[in-house]
Amino acid sequence: MSEISAKDVAALRKETGAGMMDAKRALTETGGDIEKAKDLLREQGLAAAGKRSDRVASEGTIGHYLHVQAERPVIGVLVELASETDFVAKSDGFQEAAKDLAMHVAAARPSWVTRDEVPEDVLEKERQLIAAQAKNEGKPDHIVEKIVAGRLNSFYEDHVLLDQEFVRTDKFEGTVGEMVTQLAASLGENILVRRFVRMAVGETAE
Amino acid sequence: MSEISAKDVAALRKETGAGMMDAKRALTETGGDIEKAKDLLREQGLAAAGKRSDRVASEGTIGHYLHVQAERPVIGVLVELASETDFVAKSDGFQEAAKDLAMHVAAARPSWVTRDEVPEDVLEKERQLIAAQAKNEGKPDHIVEKIVAGRLNSFYEDHVLLDQEFVRTDKFEGTVGEMVTQLAASLGENILVRRFVRMAVGETAE
Repeated sequence: MSEISAKDVAALRKETGAGMMDAKRALTETGGDIEKAKDLLREQGLAAAGKRSDRVASEGTIGHYLHVQAERPVIGVLVELASETDFVAKSDGFQEAAKDLAMHVAAARPSWVTRDEVPEDVLEKERQLIAAQAKNEGKPDHIVEKIVAGRLNSFYEDHVLLDQEFVRTDKFEGTVGEMVTQLAASLGENILVRRFVRMAVGETAE
Repeated sequence: MSEISAKDVAALRKETGAGMMDAKRALTETGGDIEKAKDLLREQGLAAAGKRSDRVASEGTIGHYLHVQAERPVIGVLVELASETDFVAKSDGFQEAAKDLAMHVAAARPSWVTRDEVPEDVLEKERQLIAAQAKNEGKPDHIVEKIVAGRLNSFYEDHVLLDQEFVRTDKFEGTVGEMVTQLAASLGENILVRRFVRMAVGETAE
């Protein structure tokens, strides 16, 4: 029997989500042929469905919200909410969520969708500000680090959409991220907030 | 009589729009006092109303348009249309124009509002491209410059909102800029398209 390399087992597991023993056994049966081993695992129902959040979400919708003041719209928001199928994209629950998200953005004014999107120089400036504040408050150095971490969390909760408290507490209590995760679970598809834009009369574009 | 400086006359004319002789006369009457001369000209009805397009347009509305496909919105557009007063901003004609502009942006996909906004490196690249094309077509050098100017105009007409042909030819025939100018004239206020955004499902943000 030819030797099954750990590298092949790892590759096979990555592609199929199968367990270690199952992947090893499949490779052994197919004499080290990864493609045939994939088919074998699938036939045997041992390939995982795949993590929902890894699945391609190329469909979706554009949610919108307009805030009217003195008889005219003065704030407008667009949100791109992605799904895997157009079937889900046109469903009532999904359309409603898209609108709620747009309304949330109008009220909560996030700057980014995820933490990853916050530029490093912005984070660095924030860390320095917090550290300076903490020192001014007379906090000892070993405490300052913890304070920076804690207040940086507050910064994310203020400015990152997925970390913000969802404003429609009548519909969902928790962060926007948690609301989207629950929506994905109930619809059985990978759901993502891709981007948003908020435009208000008289405010300069960033 | 104290000497009336040419500089003061110019300043007074700039602020009031009055003619040369009237400004000189007013300054002479007020002994060179610019503020008093301004009041004098206004009392005499000799100060111009002021160029409409220089007036501050700090009011306005957000126009929007959603393109639906297979039962869900897949393209969304927001446009900020500015006016001088909220009275005009809420008027039917203005609201309709804001919506028409958003619809236009959805269809015509401009990249910038005005020619000024086109980055210099983009223009330079375009000029070089056109010049190379023209030389490939065997055009002599002295003609190439004219061709660059001409085709750059086409570039603007394709990508700059105000230079684009307004898509609602049923409502107005001409460029978007001409449509806005006519709107301003009919409403008697300075009207400006400040910015726009177009978001389509699956398209990457620029």
